Amino acid sequence: MNILFDIDDTLFPSSEFSALARKNALNAMIGMGLDHDYNDLNERLDAIIKEKGPNYARHFDDLCKELKIMKPARFIASAVAAYHDTKASIAPYPKVPLTLIKLKEENHSLFIATNGNSVKQWDKLIRLGIELYFDRVFVSEDIGREKDVGFYKKVLELLGARPGECVMVGDREDADIIPSKKAGLITVRVLTGKHAHVPSTADHTIRDISELLPIVKNL
Amino acid sequence: MNILFDIDDTLFPSSEFSALARKNALNAMIGMGLDHDYNDLNERLDAIIKEKGPNYARHFDDLCKELKIMKPARFIASAVAAYHDTKASIAPYPKVPLTLIKLKEENHSLFIATNGNSVKQWDKLIRLGIELYFDRVFVSEDIGREKDVGFYKKVLELLGARPGECVMVGDREDADIIPSKKAGLITVRVLTGKHAHVPSTADHTIRDISELLPIVKNL
Repeated sequence: MNILFDIDDTLFPSSEFSALARKNALNAMIGMGLDHDYNDLNERLDAIIKEKGPNYARHFDDLCKELKIMKPARFIASAVAAYHDTKASIAPYPKVPLTLIKLKEENHSLFIATNGNSVKQWDKLIRLGIELYFDRVFVSEDIGREKDVGFYKKVLELLGARPGECVMVGDREDADIIPSKKAGLITVRVLTGKHAHVPSTADHTIRDISELLPIVKNL
Repeated sequence: MNILFDIDDTLFPSSEFSALARKNALNAMIGMGLDHDYNDLNERLDAIIKEKGPNYARHFDDLCKELKIMKPARFIASAVAAYHDTKASIAPYPKVPLTLIKLKEENHSLFIATNGNSVKQWDKLIRLGIELYFDRVFVSEDIGREKDVGFYKKVLELLGARPGECVMVGDREDADIIPSKKAGLITVRVLTGKHAHVPSTADHTIRDISELLPIVKNL
């Protein structure tokens, strides 16, 4: 079997780490002497991230500008350092490494199918220490489209595989399950991350990645 | 006394960490499967850094382009992660924290006088864990000129201090000693880092930062 995995909130708790990174960054600014209410800082940062998007690199510069801080370098530096340190310490969901190695032992081929920036998504795989498990990594930036039916059809073409030989594993109905199912793949929805409450239309629905093993065995 | 310190190669072995960061980055690319001679990679990277300057952010992108790597994301990500991890692990010269705390106990005021980008220089102080020792941090980017006589005169003006009340401590004749001496400051040259071989014209010359303590006591 060819088993394709999403990364964020499927292989590691991406939403939790992002929230923690922001929290650590704001606390580092306060620790550096910024005399400002934490909740207000958090709301302002949220608004900046919503407006500029997650790939913008100067969120904390903007925050300091909004607060009219005259000498912002110390606050920007402390925030960015704490933010990056948290992002560098990401770890997979507990059962992920063992599940991946067992799938390899059973001679399945593993792949990544993810939306985002190639370098950023590779950075996550490397930080998670799981990059060597995957034969190929398909990132929307390289494929030229985000995970829609066309994305999955293109991946099938690149793999030279029929849809029934491929399993897509992910946490999101919109990007992981609905379009890949339309392209004919076997779908497995894992109920992790902030979208866990969304009803599943996948062929199989699991609560932990390790439940993938018996499913794949019975295919 | 007002005691001003340079950062790079004065408070921590900056040149050594930069060399180590590059080495770790290139080794990470090789570890990721790049089949290329290490020394050739190193020479190419050196040339790119020389051409684009140290504050350029896409050295490894350029290196991959030069090598005509088709899918560079994995190599860029592994190089940048190893590079940043090394830069995040910088530590002061062994006697630096103890010397700073002793100077504080003797009621001296400590300052930073450094060339560079404000956020980057603040990041170093934070990573070194010594940012709270300094009353003010003077970075060339904020002052509007690199460390020449005018830079030091401006710093004296900002401190409201006479030159004879100020000591400048640094590793470089050109940026730390010659111009600050011309501005009337007391100068201490510390023979650390890659410029240690350059003859000293400072009022005092030391091999280790801790030798600053008896010098300041006798002023």
